[in-house]
Amino acid sequence: IPHSRTTRCSCIQIYDRPVNPKSLKKLEMIPASVFCPQVEIIATMKINGERRCLNPESKNVKNILKAISKERSKRSQRNQRKA
Amino acid sequence: IPHSRTTRCSCIQIYDRPVNPKSLKKLEMIPASVFCPQVEIIATMKINGERRCLNPESKNVKNILKAISKERSKRSQRNQRKA
Repeated sequence: IPHSRTTRCSCIQIYDRPVNPKSLKKLEMIPASVFCPQVEIIATMKINGERRCLNPESKNVKNILKAISKERSKRSQRNQRKA
Repeated sequence: IPHSRTTRCSCIQIYDRPVNPKSLKKLEMIPASVFCPQVEIIATMKINGERRCLNPESKNVKNILKAISKERSKRSQRNQRKA
């Protein structure tokens, strides 16, 4: 039986408009695997928990990752100043 | 009633040892919010779906994010060559 061409990707449609990092409840990154040959990035929005597949190649996603990482160091610096 | 000090963070314990990006099934990034004052990064492992909280400040996490992003562009370059 030839290897089945169907993949089990979670994302069928990509939401191509920019997403505001502040509107995000959660971001899921799913590395490429035997089940799905491409990386998938799924955003869960704060409003009604809507899930959107984002384009891993887009600048918007890179900025979102940076914003979340920056937010992380900002908070820990503030905590250090308090300690 | 004074503002409750209890937060609803998902992560109680941080897994501090390095994680191999290839052993990851999924990575969840949860931005800081009113429920939890710090960013949380939760890795779901391929083996038995174990979930681990990673240290958002650690170099390992930064490398994991880079590895997944790099993997993304590697795949799309290969697809472009085929097209």
